[in-house]
Amino acid sequence: MINLGMASLRLYAGLVGCRSGFCARSLRTLSGMTVSQGTRDYNPKQMAIREKVFNTIISCFKRHGAENIDTPVFELKETLTGKYGEDSKLIYDLKDQGGELLSLRYDLTVPFARYLAMNKVTNIKRYHIAKVYRRDNPAMTRGRYREFYQCDFDIAGQYDPMIPDAECLKIVHEILSELELGDFRIKVNDRRILDGMFAVCGVPDDKFRTICSTVDKLDKMSWEDVRSEMVKEKGLSEEAADQIGQYVSLQGGMDLAERLLQDAKMSQSKQACAGLTDMKQLFSYLQLFQVTDKVVFDLSLARGLDYYTGVIYEAILTQTGPVPVAAAQNGAGEKAEEGVSVGSVAGGGRYDGLVGMFDPKGRKVPCVGVSIGIERVFSIMEQKAEASAEKVRTTETQVMVASAQKNLLEERLRLTAELWNAGIKAEVMYKKNPKLLSQLQHCEDSGIPLVAILGEQELKDGVVKLRTVHSREEIDVSRAKLVEEIKRRTLDV
Amino acid sequence: MINLGMASLRLYAGLVGCRSGFCARSLRTLSGMTVSQGTRDYNPKQMAIREKVFNTIISCFKRHGAENIDTPVFELKETLTGKYGEDSKLIYDLKDQGGELLSLRYDLTVPFARYLAMNKVTNIKRYHIAKVYRRDNPAMTRGRYREFYQCDFDIAGQYDPMIPDAECLKIVHEILSELELGDFRIKVNDRRILDGMFAVCGVPDDKFRTICSTVDKLDKMSWEDVRSEMVKEKGLSEEAADQIGQYVSLQGGMDLAERLLQDAKMSQSKQACAGLTDMKQLFSYLQLFQVTDKVVFDLSLARGLDYYTGVIYEAILTQTGPVPVAAAQNGAGEKAEEGVSVGSVAGGGRYDGLVGMFDPKGRKVPCVGVSIGIERVFSIMEQKAEASAEKVRTTETQVMVASAQKNLLEERLRLTAELWNAGIKAEVMYKKNPKLLSQLQHCEDSGIPLVAILGEQELKDGVVKLRTVHSREEIDVSRAKLVEEIKRRTLDV
Repeated sequence: MINLGMASLRLYAGLVGCRSGFCARSLRTLSGMTVSQGTRDYNPKQMAIREKVFNTIISCFKRHGAENIDTPVFELKETLTGKYGEDSKLIYDLKDQGGELLSLRYDLTVPFARYLAMNKVTNIKRYHIAKVYRRDNPAMTRGRYREFYQCDFDIAGQYDPMIPDAECLKIVHEILSELELGDFRIKVNDRRILDGMFAVCGVPDDKFRTICSTVDKLDKMSWEDVRSEMVKEKGLSEEAADQIGQYVSLQGGMDLAERLLQDAKMSQSKQACAGLTDMKQLFSYLQLFQVTDKVVFDLSLARGLDYYTGVIYEAILTQTGPVPVAAAQNGAGEKAEEGVSVGSVAGGGRYDGLVGMFDPKGRKVPCVGVSIGIERVFSIMEQKAEASAEKVRTTETQVMVASAQKNLLEERLRLTAELWNAGIKAEVMYKKNPKLLSQLQHCEDSGIPLVAILGEQELKDGVVKLRTVHSREEIDVSRAKLVEEIKRRTLDV
Repeated sequence: MINLGMASLRLYAGLVGCRSGFCARSLRTLSGMTVSQGTRDYNPKQMAIREKVFNTIISCFKRHGAENIDTPVFELKETLTGKYGEDSKLIYDLKDQGGELLSLRYDLTVPFARYLAMNKVTNIKRYHIAKVYRRDNPAMTRGRYREFYQCDFDIAGQYDPMIPDAECLKIVHEILSELELGDFRIKVNDRRILDGMFAVCGVPDDKFRTICSTVDKLDKMSWEDVRSEMVKEKGLSEEAADQIGQYVSLQGGMDLAERLLQDAKMSQSKQACAGLTDMKQLFSYLQLFQVTDKVVFDLSLARGLDYYTGVIYEAILTQTGPVPVAAAQNGAGEKAEEGVSVGSVAGGGRYDGLVGMFDPKGRKVPCVGVSIGIERVFSIMEQKAEASAEKVRTTETQVMVASAQKNLLEERLRLTAELWNAGIKAEVMYKKNPKLLSQLQHCEDSGIPLVAILGEQELKDGVVKLRTVHSREEIDVSRAKLVEEIKRRTLDV
């Protein structure tokens, strides 16, 4: 579910039209990333880091019994229409080349809901890891791109309240803990509490969504600015705005939910009471899952998307990482981003009405889910790797098949094929007569731990000289025992 | 590198304009696949099969020391322009919403070449697994979609001739053997041999490419039809066509290369001689790699794409699999496909000029690579799975936390969290009071091997009843030893 950094994305929606600052045509290299049209290539080192992060996330999803699905990168344009509120203008459309009008997926939630309705699936716990697309003003140095990964976990089905919701928060807690990104906090709220609050504060029904959008900016703007937008731009009364102001400053846990249930005004709203009762229930499950240390009930959390109907949440990193080296190189066009919080790394919530929008008979399938926003995590991990002395290996090669003498290409190739056929990860230089030094250098550079050296004498004796790269120790191993010996020495590779 | 099934794709290029037969709007379900706009969703069972296939392929690529890269799903339109010959009309363009004109990638080879040039990489061995896009007439029952995966392995760099080329063929041999898809054959040829042949047969220089395209249809059309196209449509003389006809009927191994080097006419072409000499060299390396049993030098292999400069190859499955169940359900629109060979599962070749097209100074980086066309493989594996009695598991859950009595939800959640925290893959039902039978039924359905059953008595005794699903055997395990016991019993999961 939903995009990390949604809040900050929205801030720039207005800039997209002009794109004045961002020269996407120029291909620049920022701290090792190649940047073109707001997207990025991943080089082998970045891919090695990405693989590690994905493994952590997928392990967690599998630990929770999730199945995996995949959907196409584009959907019928009409599938995406009317699902994202103001952000719909960020959708990439395909050119009309005949046939249906298509758009690149904007998130994985709407395709998931379409999938459930189309296949008449009424309950599933699934994960989906794939790229999504937004015509937004990119900010590469902060891990924000026009093409980026989402790692979604969702639970669809009619169940007893808040149990799947609590599992989603447990998953966020597990993943952020395991990735060791520093301290984090998970804010939770409920759309019903927000709507109830708007109602009792005197917001007219037809202004709920737009006022909700303004409240959602509280993590980026001061209350004064938010209040001013409500009153001056959106025409809300000053009294209503001030009453909202009192509520949205509140943060707490189960105690806050209990207090608000007793609140003279809030308790007048049935919706708010339902949300608050569920919030209490949610916290009781979170206690069982031992994750309440990081979770805070925060009435200012709104989230921008239209389709949420119940609990919503967002995880932020509370420690600011090291300032990216590239930040200092930013051109004028990226100035607007300075000072913007970019800590959001996961978000989601409950959307009980979305599947019904795709079902011909409107049959609903309640859903709750979370999306891990992985690009920001990649950026942090890359910075960590740069700062660390430890080298990131980009291959898993166990052994290099080498020779010190000339005219042994055929023998090298024969041995390499033997090793491949035995399941050993092996490399050989594509030169007839490479220098031993350059073969050893390649091992040093790419972290290959062993070298199998062939020479005339070794061939006569039926042995191979097995060299350990880091110790430079060499021993003769009989050809028959070579595979076994390599496996023994590279158990950890 | 290049698309499997390229040859068959090309056959339908002409149909794309009308699309009369294919009603992409109607969403149909064909043998378990959901189909929309020529793309497919993958359900959990299909994803489980896909994961297995990818693991086999990625293991092979890693065994050969390949690094991994990734590029964006879209490229600047101009990057793709002029690289695919007649097939360029199949490229998906994005709508012009301001900014650069973008297109969805058509293969992974051109983005790879762009990546090398942009990052000034002069040598790398990399794999890249990602989806590519073609506005083609889809044929879902045969594993042909508008969105499909390619699994590419390429070696870039200036090396001694034919060593990397031989490794690519070794890789195809390994992967097709490991996937157990039945017998296969790898056809090889060389663009220089083809061009030399055209020259000595009297084809005018400016007709090389178009005659090459016609030759490429030999796997789908009779020689008579190919000859007729050459003479009547492309204006080749009858004599030239007949001379070509004699050559393209030739198949063999190293012996054929030697014979052609002595051929009075062929030996007049320097280009052909260079290609034939390299072909001999290639076969000598393939002998060392012990893969000549499946490789055949076939002068009729042409491959359609413009960018090949040397060796080309294509792997086909020689056993026809079971006829897909859905084939009988095909509508009239898919009639045109009947009788078309769909055996091609890998292809590639050498493209020494492509990187230079992206370098401002035209600096060349020689490249050779192969693309495994995985959709066809998925189709075969899915059919196998359907036919097999063995159930495909879609989760890896080791244990279900259950209870036989009411009011134990909290205890179930607490224990489940304990197991998750210990790295055990565990599920729990999202119901306050689920029936034991439905909890056990879920285990049966999804292949969960163990159930940890909690009851009042077990809680008092500090134990859990651990049930083995298939044997229905139950034993009490102390809470402290539960994790260890579950791990011991599910080592193979």
